[in-house]
Amino acid sequence: MDSTKTERFKKGWEKLKEIDGQAGVNVIESLKNVSPDLGKYTIEYPFGDVYSREILDNRTKEIAVVAALVAMGNASPQLKVHINAALNVGVTEQELSEIMILMSVYAGFPSALNGTFTLKEVIEERKEEK
Amino acid sequence: MDSTKTERFKKGWEKLKEIDGQAGVNVIESLKNVSPDLGKYTIEYPFGDVYSREILDNRTKEIAVVAALVAMGNASPQLKVHINAALNVGVTEQELSEIMILMSVYAGFPSALNGTFTLKEVIEERKEEK
Amino acid sequence: MDSTKTERFKKGWEKLKEIDGQAGVNVIESLKNVSPDLGKYTIEYPFGDVYSREILDNRTKEIAVVAALVAMGNASPQLKVHINAALNVGVTEQELSEIMILMSVYAGFPSALNGTFTLKEVIEERKEEK
Amino acid sequence: MDSTKTERFKKGWEKLKEIDGQAGVNVIESLKNVSPDLGKYTIEYPFGDVYSREILDNRTKEIAVVAALVAMGNASPQLKVHINAALNVGVTEQELSEIMILMSVYAGFPSALNGTFTLKEVIEERKEEK
Amino acid sequence: MDSTKTERFKKGWEKLKEIDGQAGVNVIESLKNVSPDLGKYTIEYPFGDVYSREILDNRTKEIAVVAALVAMGNASPQLKVHINAALNVGVTEQELSEIMILMSVYAGFPSALNGTFTLKEVIEERKEEK
Amino acid sequence: MDSTKTERFKKGWEKLKEIDGQAGVNVIESLKNVSPDLGKYTIEYPFGDVYSREILDNRTKEIAVVAALVAMGNASPQLKVHINAALNVGVTEQELSEIMILMSVYAGFPSALNGTFTLKEVIEERKEEK
Repeated sequence: MDSTKTERFKKGWEKLKEIDGQAGVNVIESLKNVSPDLGKYTIEYPFGDVYSREILDNRTKEIAVVAALVAMGNASPQLKVHINAALNVGVTEQELSEIMILMSVYAGFPSALNGTFTLKEVIEERKEEK
Repeated sequence: MDSTKTERFKKGWEKLKEIDGQAGVNVIESLKNVSPDLGKYTIEYPFGDVYSREILDNRTKEIAVVAALVAMGNASPQLKVHINAALNVGVTEQELSEIMILMSVYAGFPSALNGTFTLKEVIEERKEEK
Repeated sequence: MDSTKTERFKKGWEKLKEIDGQAGVNVIESLKNVSPDLGKYTIEYPFGDVYSREILDNRTKEIAVVAALVAMGNASPQLKVHINAALNVGVTEQELSEIMILMSVYAGFPSALNGTFTLKEVIEERKEEK
Repeated sequence: MDSTKTERFKKGWEKLKEIDGQAGVNVIESLKNVSPDLGKYTIEYPFGDVYSREILDNRTKEIAVVAALVAMGNASPQLKVHINAALNVGVTEQELSEIMILMSVYAGFPSALNGTFTLKEVIEERKEEK
Repeated sequence: MDSTKTERFKKGWEKLKEIDGQAGVNVIESLKNVSPDLGKYTIEYPFGDVYSREILDNRTKEIAVVAALVAMGNASPQLKVHINAALNVGVTEQELSEIMILMSVYAGFPSALNGTFTLKEVIEERKEEK
Repeated sequence: MDSTKTERFKKGWEKLKEIDGQAGVNVIESLKNVSPDLGKYTIEYPFGDVYSREILDNRTKEIAVVAALVAMGNASPQLKVHINAALNVGVTEQELSEIMILMSVYAGFPSALNGTFTLKEVIEERKEEK
């Protein structure tokens, strides 16, 4: 089965590039040797099915995802990808730091502080890239 | 010290009533005998300081908080309060069930399913109250 | 779109009935009013895509899933479903209580004890049903 | 092997009765049919080995354990047992509610609130028993 | 608003310097560009409000916080700060390694081992600084 | 007390060498200065008591443990040790990547992806060692 031909895969691949840009493509690339099927599923389910839904706009989706990843506190590479994604779809730095403040209430100050330092790191990396 | 007189407390008390309504007031009431100070802090910091900030609107705040509580999966009474709060400030049932679907990607299907069943419970309780 | 017609859906629906039996069907049923799409995704991705893979046999899958749910400790309804599923596909009660003992090392005694009490509950319910 | 004869088991059994009282004995009893070995290990390792160590006194141990269980937020039966244990070894109600306030900083307000409500429940149960 | 003038801020700032020393000051400094308000709140609520309470002494507070952070297992920079803080207020190295042993029971051996290796790292850094 | 002489210790030490090989020995070595007692307990309880049980075979144990550590997502050094241990006792790379795919359902895609990247790292390290 050439799974790359399914509609879900194609839609997911476009969505992944739109939202996560090169960082998302790199994640899929780096799965190639070890687990191409997890790569395929990552494109199909999260992006082809879920992110392609249109009830919440991209900004709202990224705000929810960043909040969740900060609260979980154990998915630091994904938090970085989604802070970038949030900035890509128009969430401002100020709004992102606001989500971290909100999380100090629900997940505690360590999660809020670690989320804020990841935000700082992303902002600095994006400045350097310009 | 009559802490109920601080500006933060007053502002927080109004905010708590605006967002969480009677459910929020009940939480504070039920703390009275066991930990009035935690009640005071709950009004002052989460509501007086954090919820009173105006960079994110109430809808956006509740979307972020519901996502985080679903992802954490261990704060079920607070999830119920915030699903109600989200509905109170204009987040629709459909948008809330959309957040749960989004969380299936980041926190797994058990969290998404449990969040959705809590949403169902809240929707039914609100129907009965009318 | 009549999503129930996709191949993944059909395969997933058969797999869900094979593994989880009536308990699985009930979960999907109870999603109908609140989030039919989460029901559809639960059939398609976990069951149609993942459980239908054949590298690990059903016993091994259920052992891994029970271990994970005990360790996470925040998905008690799903743990019950999967203890039943494990018994359905031939994992013995003794093997299940062995997984809980193993989890005392990795996730602590509270998780192991709560997992064991859930196992006890399931065993008793299955006896009553006979 | 009559495991109940090991020194660690005997020491653990005495320690369990000293700290947790009847609630601890009940936990072990209820494991009898489903996992007697987990019961044996619970007596031997947590109580025979760890709780019998004398570098931290009983009060300090219970303060650390209550803080940890509140922060984890997914071990509510064990939190109840240890709030009782803490009260049994001389930690005051006020000190316990102080730990919950401290946890609002590190694990967030939901954990602190749920811990405080569990404390309230335990205090009320102990009043009724008198 | 010159928030640094509130009583809570001043009290918090003194408390932060007393407990966490330079490491605490550095955390606040590094927040300056990205989220000065989270810095302000970190001083005001955790230190100005909570740490300034006098029902538990500093040793007891740090024992509870170290236990909680080890159990949570996802806040490694904060665990380092608080192991240092604990040593600063008179908790001994032996008592700290005792807390890690206690956590092997409640949060599992991985948490206990990771906590112990963080303790080792802090002890070595403090030796080098002398 | 020369604890290294207990039967449980000897049995545990052999089991640890059998399963974890040099990586396991290194963990115990590195505990020597900071917490020899945690080293002793790690040998005695997880290996002497639990891993020496024979109801589940080594393959099944490692599959359960890897699943649990991926799901918890906060014990990355231990996950590496157990991916190695799994490969040592005959779990294949393909079966391990299959467990990660399974965990995408129960603990979300970030856990599955991070687990898969750890697997990739281990596979590469083992190639270099040859």
